[in-house]
Amino acid sequence: MPHLTLEYTRNLDGLPVGDTLLALNEALFESGEVQAESDLKSRAIALDAVRIGIAGGACGFVHAQLRLLAGRTPEAKKALAERIAVVLRARTPRPAGMMVQLSVEVVDMDRDSYVKEKLPQA
Amino acid sequence: MPHLTLEYTRNLDGLPVGDTLLALNEALFESGEVQAESDLKSRAIALDAVRIGIAGGACGFVHAQLRLLAGRTPEAKKALAERIAVVLRARTPRPAGMMVQLSVEVVDMDRDSYVKEKLPQA
Amino acid sequence: MPHLTLEYTRNLDGLPVGDTLLALNEALFESGEVQAESDLKSRAIALDAVRIGIAGGACGFVHAQLRLLAGRTPEAKKALAERIAVVLRARTPRPAGMMVQLSVEVVDMDRDSYVKEKLPQA
Repeated sequence: MPHLTLEYTRNLDGLPVGDTLLALNEALFESGEVQAESDLKSRAIALDAVRIGIAGGACGFVHAQLRLLAGRTPEAKKALAERIAVVLRARTPRPAGMMVQLSVEVVDMDRDSYVKEKLPQA
Repeated sequence: MPHLTLEYTRNLDGLPVGDTLLALNEALFESGEVQAESDLKSRAIALDAVRIGIAGGACGFVHAQLRLLAGRTPEAKKALAERIAVVLRARTPRPAGMMVQLSVEVVDMDRDSYVKEKLPQA
Repeated sequence: MPHLTLEYTRNLDGLPVGDTLLALNEALFESGEVQAESDLKSRAIALDAVRIGIAGGACGFVHAQLRLLAGRTPEAKKALAERIAVVLRARTPRPAGMMVQLSVEVVDMDRDSYVKEKLPQA
């Protein structure tokens, strides 16, 4: 069930998106916290209209949000966030003179109301 | 106040987006949980950069996130998610040979800090 | 750490996006709730596929979601939402004959698992 959304500012579009999403899924699956690899649903979104801070200057960010069914321990969630950060640190472009920020958020999804299924072929 | 976001992978763009959003709003309003029909604010977003799982192969997904002011019972939230799933099951394309996943998440919004208003005409 | 996402329906694209995002960051920073101005990461997203309500007719909306590390008081969150609303009320277009809605949501982010860093230059 994990849903991962990777946002990145357009000025970091040297980010190898396909490779990064695959590496994120691999890192999450290797944690042992995900039952089936096909449950991992990750997307990347390039942000065109962004404002970081007030001062101005060259800056960008990558931000990952991981949504999981509630029930993991705080330690497990922290470890998953760190796995994501490892992947992103290794792949995020760092253009000269640009301040690049990285952040990772983990969100608990309400388990009781969650719907999940594979649609049968027509 | 409900906010609904429907994400779908671009390889499912046979999804009839306008019809689906209207059907979702109708199904939510018929639940009796929404006070005014005009409160329903639904959008669809096609995802171009996606990775599902690790193994590869043809796959896609639709995912709906419904955000409601906190206060509904677990049963009401479950019923709303199921209403959304009914609409999506009936409309999501199922291309031959493609594994298509469907998921629905319900999120409680913080009621105390929520701002909502209709802007008066200038 | 605050993440702000401003969604607006495409029929309101007279919204001055760059100016609005800067004004939002300024208003949030002036609250005293944000430690460093460069922590403010705001983006705007234009929505092309939208359905508001059921009845039809000309309508649009702007919706801001502010994500903060958990720990603010309800009063502080309410005040931040109101600061955002002030900025949006002043800048959102109100085309003749169109019903325009404004909403602001504040979300607590899980503090224990949050990752945040500035990437060192390569």
